[in-house]
Amino acid sequence: MYRVAAIGGDGIGPEILDEGKKVLDAAGEKYDFDIEWTDFDIGAERYLETGELVTEEELKELSGYPAIYFGSIGDDRVKPGILEKGILLKMRFSFDEYVNLRPIRLLHGIQTPLAGKGPEDIDFVVVRENTEDFYVGIGSRFRQSEKKELEVVRDLYSVKFGLDVESDAEEIAYQIGVLSREGCRRVMEYAFDLAERRQRRVASVDKANVLSDVYGLWREVFSEVEGRHPGVATELTFVDAVTMWFVKNPEWFDVVVTPNMFGDIVTDLGAMIQGGLGLAPGGNINPTGTSMFEPIHGSAPKYRGLGVVNPIATIWAGALLLDHLGEHEAAEGVVQAIEGTIRDGVVTRDLGGAAKTADVGDHVAALLRR
Amino acid sequence: MYRVAAIGGDGIGPEILDEGKKVLDAAGEKYDFDIEWTDFDIGAERYLETGELVTEEELKELSGYPAIYFGSIGDDRVKPGILEKGILLKMRFSFDEYVNLRPIRLLHGIQTPLAGKGPEDIDFVVVRENTEDFYVGIGSRFRQSEKKELEVVRDLYSVKFGLDVESDAEEIAYQIGVLSREGCRRVMEYAFDLAERRQRRVASVDKANVLSDVYGLWREVFSEVEGRHPGVATELTFVDAVTMWFVKNPEWFDVVVTPNMFGDIVTDLGAMIQGGLGLAPGGNINPTGTSMFEPIHGSAPKYRGLGVVNPIATIWAGALLLDHLGEHEAAEGVVQAIEGTIRDGVVTRDLGGAAKTADVGDHVAALLRR
Ligand SMILES: CC(C)[C@H](C(=O)O)[C@@H](O)C(=O)O
Ligand SMILES: CC(C)[C@H](C(=O)O)[C@@H](O)C(=O)O
Repeated sequence: MYRVAAIGGDGIGPEILDEGKKVLDAAGEKYDFDIEWTDFDIGAERYLETGELVTEEELKELSGYPAIYFGSIGDDRVKPGILEKGILLKMRFSFDEYVNLRPIRLLHGIQTPLAGKGPEDIDFVVVRENTEDFYVGIGSRFRQSEKKELEVVRDLYSVKFGLDVESDAEEIAYQIGVLSREGCRRVMEYAFDLAERRQRRVASVDKANVLSDVYGLWREVFSEVEGRHPGVATELTFVDAVTMWFVKNPEWFDVVVTPNMFGDIVTDLGAMIQGGLGLAPGGNINPTGTSMFEPIHGSAPKYRGLGVVNPIATIWAGALLLDHLGEHEAAEGVVQAIEGTIRDGVVTRDLGGAAKTADVGDHVAALLRR
Repeated sequence: MYRVAAIGGDGIGPEILDEGKKVLDAAGEKYDFDIEWTDFDIGAERYLETGELVTEEELKELSGYPAIYFGSIGDDRVKPGILEKGILLKMRFSFDEYVNLRPIRLLHGIQTPLAGKGPEDIDFVVVRENTEDFYVGIGSRFRQSEKKELEVVRDLYSVKFGLDVESDAEEIAYQIGVLSREGCRRVMEYAFDLAERRQRRVASVDKANVLSDVYGLWREVFSEVEGRHPGVATELTFVDAVTMWFVKNPEWFDVVVTPNMFGDIVTDLGAMIQGGLGLAPGGNINPTGTSMFEPIHGSAPKYRGLGVVNPIATIWAGALLLDHLGEHEAAEGVVQAIEGTIRDGVVTRDLGGAAKTADVGDHVAALLRR
């Protein structure tokens, strides 16, 4: 028996999560385990009513679960950043979910926008660092704060550029990214371990030729970790070049390890080459703590309640959740049932079909039970 | 008569620049102007011999030219970052070339890797900010410096995360990005002016939902500039989503304005959808100072001297240079001659042809003279 927390969230979040839970319950019947779901009411609606994002109490309670199954957040009535930082990133950071795992795999029967590429060409995993880099939320505006911290950054900037920023003639915003040696090490170890169970290739993504301070450290740690995994072939790449290769030569990749912000960018590109956001799952993993699984798409408010969106990303995220709980066979079974459902043509509008959200969930569940 | 500085640089740089100069001279014959070239010996070779990157004297001399025609830099014997920061970025920053202009246009006769897309779908311009953001080169490592600036960043970080970084138990690197209000304004004005001469649409790229400090300012300024251009339709996008749309719906874009680092990433992706790096030109523009034009690819050391690489990116960059000098008709003529050369099948290996680098330059020049 597993206890799993469920957060539907905003927009289409609740309806796609329902399909995911349905499929995971069916997997339980087939592979002989039970999931006890506990729903948490977290999202824009409550924030607009009460001003609460995720409370300390909720964080404490959630930290008692091995896994959280997450729909999506985002609401047009809330300023960009509030929900993302106050809920999604808050949980990633609080639970120290330092691995963001994103399989980029073209399922059989799905069209990629890339000419001449098929499922045999697009099958890799991005391991995105998930707690550091430019996501730490340190930054400010010069003319909006009197805090002492700012004076120094202001000095740094004026010394460097000979600007008289003291005069307040100019308004400047800054943002700081940080990487720690240990933060790099642990996510890279995860990537290399994963590669050892796959094709034994790891590509690292950075921009060390320009952002030399953070990504210089990243490269240093990479070369140490690589030294501990002699059987794995490696490559150092720049983020700009990687976007080209994802499009031109996706077959080159096996495991890609990337700092947080570049990981955000390249995994969305990855989602597109695997057929679109409706098909892209993600796991936020703390190997010894609470992990969280979600589709990587947003809350798509305009489709809310219509029952037309594709639940496959969420169902696949559920497979990652099962894998994380140790139910490897069930996880594989879910992915196969997804492929079977696509083969049977039970797909939503984004994939050219006419099925409703619940039809897809029902069909995947039925194939599993068979 | 125009005086133009020429810097061949490293690897294949000199040979592709030769083709570019050849074509621009032919354009001069046809459209009745003269270019006086002055070559500058700047690059890895000299750096390895003398330790000099670009000298203050050279910067001063170069600042007397309206335009620099630039090949490429990069050498395997030099640590990543040295040449990029010491030569290329040095010139972009010194000459305050605040616009990095990158046309993403699929020329007739070129294959894009995107299924079902043609020249009518891929024709937009990216206007990349070129002097600020995470490219300012401010950052350091905690355990490698005693400078006072570091103490404060260390404080910022330890306060935020409750880490005892004073103890030196952990090594941390940081990197700071800065945007100024004026820096945003001027590049956005450039983008809107450009859009008014095109399809009157501007998309802005940022990640304001996470890097809220710098990109919050970016959005604020964007909404002001947009207010001054009521005839232009606008859209605010996140960088992760933009990479998807470049692949799925490139036809949505007319002018894209982006901060420096995201601009680096999306323009390489753009280069790929327009057929590859061999076809992607860039301009580094200071509308009232010294501007610099270059192919966006690197120095490809392994092809050096073989005469096989594609000079089209460089020749096209030459067209941007002519346009910048006010020779609009000649600029258009060069692009047409490039398309004619592709139509005539005089293309290099990367485009499936057998022509040598010089054959392509010769053919473009011949078509121009006709
Ligand atoms: C919603 C946003 C904060 C988030 C991110 O940037 O990490 C999303 O884009 C993702 O990739 O999961
Ligand atoms: C070489 C490098 C410093 C440069 C950049 O990052 O700007 C290049 O990638 C470019 O896009 O012109």
